[in-house]
Amino acid sequence: MGIIERIIPVRREGNDILILDQRRLPAEVIYQNVASVAEMEMYIKTLAVRGAPAIGIAGAYGMLIALRGAGSLPDAYDRLDQAAAQLGNARPTAVNLRWAVNRQLSKAKSIRETLEDSHDELKAVEALTCIVREEADAMLSEDMELGRRIGVAGLPLLFNGATVLTHCNAGAIATSGYGTALAPIYIAHENGLKVQVYADETRPLLQGMRLTAWEMAAAGIETTVICDSMAPFAMKQGKIDLVIVGADRIARNGDTANKIGTYGLAVAARAHGISFYIAAPYSTFDPEIPDGSAIPIEERGEEEVVSWRGDRMAPHGVMVYNPAFDVTPAHLISGIITEKGILRAPYETSIADFLK
Amino acid sequence: MGIIERIIPVRREGNDILILDQRRLPAEVIYQNVASVAEMEMYIKTLAVRGAPAIGIAGAYGMLIALRGAGSLPDAYDRLDQAAAQLGNARPTAVNLRWAVNRQLSKAKSIRETLEDSHDELKAVEALTCIVREEADAMLSEDMELGRRIGVAGLPLLFNGATVLTHCNAGAIATSGYGTALAPIYIAHENGLKVQVYADETRPLLQGMRLTAWEMAAAGIETTVICDSMAPFAMKQGKIDLVIVGADRIARNGDTANKIGTYGLAVAARAHGISFYIAAPYSTFDPEIPDGSAIPIEERGEEEVVSWRGDRMAPHGVMVYNPAFDVTPAHLISGIITEKGILRAPYETSIADFLK
Repeated sequence: MGIIERIIPVRREGNDILILDQRRLPAEVIYQNVASVAEMEMYIKTLAVRGAPAIGIAGAYGMLIALRGAGSLPDAYDRLDQAAAQLGNARPTAVNLRWAVNRQLSKAKSIRETLEDSHDELKAVEALTCIVREEADAMLSEDMELGRRIGVAGLPLLFNGATVLTHCNAGAIATSGYGTALAPIYIAHENGLKVQVYADETRPLLQGMRLTAWEMAAAGIETTVICDSMAPFAMKQGKIDLVIVGADRIARNGDTANKIGTYGLAVAARAHGISFYIAAPYSTFDPEIPDGSAIPIEERGEEEVVSWRGDRMAPHGVMVYNPAFDVTPAHLISGIITEKGILRAPYETSIADFLK
Repeated sequence: MGIIERIIPVRREGNDILILDQRRLPAEVIYQNVASVAEMEMYIKTLAVRGAPAIGIAGAYGMLIALRGAGSLPDAYDRLDQAAAQLGNARPTAVNLRWAVNRQLSKAKSIRETLEDSHDELKAVEALTCIVREEADAMLSEDMELGRRIGVAGLPLLFNGATVLTHCNAGAIATSGYGTALAPIYIAHENGLKVQVYADETRPLLQGMRLTAWEMAAAGIETTVICDSMAPFAMKQGKIDLVIVGADRIARNGDTANKIGTYGLAVAARAHGISFYIAAPYSTFDPEIPDGSAIPIEERGEEEVVSWRGDRMAPHGVMVYNPAFDVTPAHLISGIITEKGILRAPYETSIADFLK
């Protein structure tokens, strides 16, 4: 599998916690050595680390950092409580973040009584640190394994010479090493299949051009960047074999919220008879949501659209509409690639079975 | 009609020829006073003036500038010949440019014998200048009139409160005052209808965000800028009543080449039951081309896509596909708005009748 060979956006090297600073990509590849909980919080808030699963791992390792310099067991637990509150709220919409710090907190608390029996306070802190470290490592491994399984599940969709169109970044650096939408491509590549990628640039923030193109190039997978508006024409020209994208939230009926632009791709794919797949692990499914109409769509500020690094491109006096996501109805989705296999319509049933 | 009230990208004020410098829009609204034929050539080549009709008018006035300081009739005709060669080749693909300078040349030559009868060499040059000036003014008026008629022809498609989605810039500043796709919107606005515009930003060069948004705002027409990828979702949300775009070339069967991204809009419009119109004058139709497959698609360099004002956004080691145009098949087009009315399917017949 080779953890070391893969790009892992949040990882541990000995006592150092390193995060790949995605704000600087692709111009600079910089791993930040995270010095404190406050610094980790800042990296999460400023999107130096992004992608719900990767943010979760950042939270988990943030809890480990919290224990640095703890002088006693009560001090250590105080630090964990404080860090959980601080990191868990760094981005309120990312479910994984809160889930990850709570998992660490539960793990730590589950052995508190045992540790309190120890006569050596510092040995007890050391043991707690070891447990929190192992839990974070385990979460990273699990996340990588989820990605790998999604990749294996999606592998049969690919073939030698296949060209996959993707949107935004649902890759290694949004997760731990494999991603969701890009996982089948990595697995195919690792298995010697020649696949190539068309990466939508993904306006307004260009995650496709900056991040997907970067990680594909780093893996040696042939990648072509296009403007989002070129995708339908590329399909018409026969350049695209299938579409795979990630997801931000999947409703009970299969309707899927993902980065803005996904819906238009699904419409165009259908018009050209091209398969359109979603790739996501169990945690992306929201059984509370009956269908796409109940998924709230975040609208973001106009600056993202009209400016690039402070350079304003639109005149003043115009309005800007900037929905961050759109919803693709289930009937346009050929299948949902999960860690347990590909879910097919009718999704009400297949999703319910999957989440059992 | 009010020439003065409208934004005219190339126009004459007394002896001055002014061009709106579109390279600086929307940050700065600067009219350049064109000093020489060489300067006009430079403005055309660097896209300070753009849009096939507007470039034609620039060529026509460039011929007038050529006559400045002519000392004799032979000198004047030499200058015209030289300017025609120089300006006519400034952009080889723009048919209008060559057509415009040739029209000036023919006009000038048609009265050469008469002028040579004159005993006063300078009076003869003055008369020639007057004729060339009037021809350029006439071409500008004709271009504006074509736009106005397209606007009147398209007016019945609009209604009070209508929202029109457009792509790229097929407006006043690509022509003389009305544009093609934007002409019906101007005419509706002049007639007191409240219409609003959704302007696709139009990657990679952002003509929608920079130019369409600017001229709509200047006209006081409510405009919302969106990223190209947001258009299908905006349609799904019921925000769009109809689509009107311009055209670069229309085949005999109605297949239409226009700015990249147009085809995807047409596919999405069809999927949502939204009417999709092309607006273009007679000169955009190419009776030599049987259908869209025969229209050559220009592919441009990668820099337009991966860089913004020198700031590179993509990693090195990736490929870029940058088609400047795409082709929308006739069956996705609800109608073609021309100066003589709206052409409808079957286009083979309606276009043949129109061009008679």
